[in-house]
Amino acid sequence: MNLVIIGVGLIGGSFAKDIKRLYPDANIIGIDKKEAHVDEALELQLVDQKGTYDALATADMVFVSIPVDALVKELPKILDAVGDETVVMDAGSTKKLICETVDNHPKRRNFLACHPIAGTEFSGPSAAINGLYEGKTNIICEVEKTAFKLQEKALEIFQKLKMRIRYMNPEAHDKHIAYVSHLSHISSFMLGKTVIEKEKNERDIFDMAGSGFESTVRLAKSSPDMWTPIFEQNKENVVETLEEYIHNLERFKQLLLSGDFENVYKEMNNTNRIKQILKGIPLTKNEN
Amino acid sequence: MNLVIIGVGLIGGSFAKDIKRLYPDANIIGIDKKEAHVDEALELQLVDQKGTYDALATADMVFVSIPVDALVKELPKILDAVGDETVVMDAGSTKKLICETVDNHPKRRNFLACHPIAGTEFSGPSAAINGLYEGKTNIICEVEKTAFKLQEKALEIFQKLKMRIRYMNPEAHDKHIAYVSHLSHISSFMLGKTVIEKEKNERDIFDMAGSGFESTVRLAKSSPDMWTPIFEQNKENVVETLEEYIHNLERFKQLLLSGDFENVYKEMNNTNRIKQILKGIPLTKNEN
Repeated sequence: MNLVIIGVGLIGGSFAKDIKRLYPDANIIGIDKKEAHVDEALELQLVDQKGTYDALATADMVFVSIPVDALVKELPKILDAVGDETVVMDAGSTKKLICETVDNHPKRRNFLACHPIAGTEFSGPSAAINGLYEGKTNIICEVEKTAFKLQEKALEIFQKLKMRIRYMNPEAHDKHIAYVSHLSHISSFMLGKTVIEKEKNERDIFDMAGSGFESTVRLAKSSPDMWTPIFEQNKENVVETLEEYIHNLERFKQLLLSGDFENVYKEMNNTNRIKQILKGIPLTKNEN
Repeated sequence: MNLVIIGVGLIGGSFAKDIKRLYPDANIIGIDKKEAHVDEALELQLVDQKGTYDALATADMVFVSIPVDALVKELPKILDAVGDETVVMDAGSTKKLICETVDNHPKRRNFLACHPIAGTEFSGPSAAINGLYEGKTNIICEVEKTAFKLQEKALEIFQKLKMRIRYMNPEAHDKHIAYVSHLSHISSFMLGKTVIEKEKNERDIFDMAGSGFESTVRLAKSSPDMWTPIFEQNKENVVETLEEYIHNLERFKQLLLSGDFENVYKEMNNTNRIKQILKGIPLTKNEN
């Protein structure tokens, strides 16, 4: 198998690791805007060789894992360059603009719009880990627009990666993911900001923060290069989630101010069922 | 050593485990409002026997790990009952009201006001784990009001538990802890609420949530019995942190709405340094 990975960071690099394990004979070509990233990926043996878009014509599969602003720019060019039997998959955290961008592309049938729900707060080739995708959900959009044979080729790999597949339209994807992923990132970033602003003495944060704070603020370590274009592309949905979140925080504050601790209790008690909802979400085993 | 633990949940039970390991000859007496909890603690061999406040007169040490509303009610009675050489420590997440409550108590010198920054989102005796306190900070308030010999007795144990000690006045404790602990819990509870309200189909949350959401919403599994009285006692500080948090979220929303993604990027980039600040915070090894 000839696999080209465009963007050899955490997502692309982890995919490379799995493919190497599942298909020892695979030839993996790495492409990255940052020369240093491909060099690092080579050194870490994530990829077998460096490449350019010239490699796309003979690729069996292309995995594009770059920030979503770069994705909408590059995807048409990538499709221009691939062969008829090549399946191109992305891993973008937004789907609507990406699907629209290639909707009329002559090679639309070579593209499978994917969003594997997997990752950590780290980035770059050195953040790549084994088994990142195992047990995780892969959301596939507009599957009917991809050539059936190429769907099959991709699905065989997802099956070997032990991923769960969920089909969804791009609008629904972007709406739901704003709640369960994009909002978490903002809540975490702003929590980090609030605490840093207040606690000018960083030693205080360090001394007084427990694992609870560490966990809640974990996503505030995420890459702004990755997240700024996600928020830009999914602006409407994200703003809606933020408004509801702020509304709920305001209400909680009012309950505190008015001394209504019966309802403070109820708010928390009702939310406790997140425990049952989340039970069984496969955690990433090794998050560095 | 005769140790009485009042409240044999996660905090008291984990303390019992450590003491058993460090002092194999210790006799540990468990007291809990919930009969089932003491029975469970006995069964799990966290404690050696059940007890009542009659056991306090001959105790070397009393560890009080109960919700902070119960703490302000029980602490004066506990001090009434202890012997002259008994040191009583609490583990409450608020310190001002607790210190005020016993400030004029004739046995004030037997009390050491503590807040070990340790815990998980779980509760009850079965949540107790080994080594919960290792490497964690223990904040001690008004240390000068505790008899020196009893300070020494307690500090010897904290040292053996490998805890870091930090001295602080109760007002400063409550102010700082509102930022690095109490606010995280509210941000997490309200995130959970926002997502549950929106995603009526819980399967969607389960399928689309990644480890990022899981981590950010982890504290929303916490016990409302424990947290309602904390928010009540620390209301003023908590409301202040909430106002700043909401302000920051509002500002982020405005940046999104006005399409100012340069500043969206900067907000996240500036907050990324939480990575360095948190580096080295000891995580709890086994969080169930």
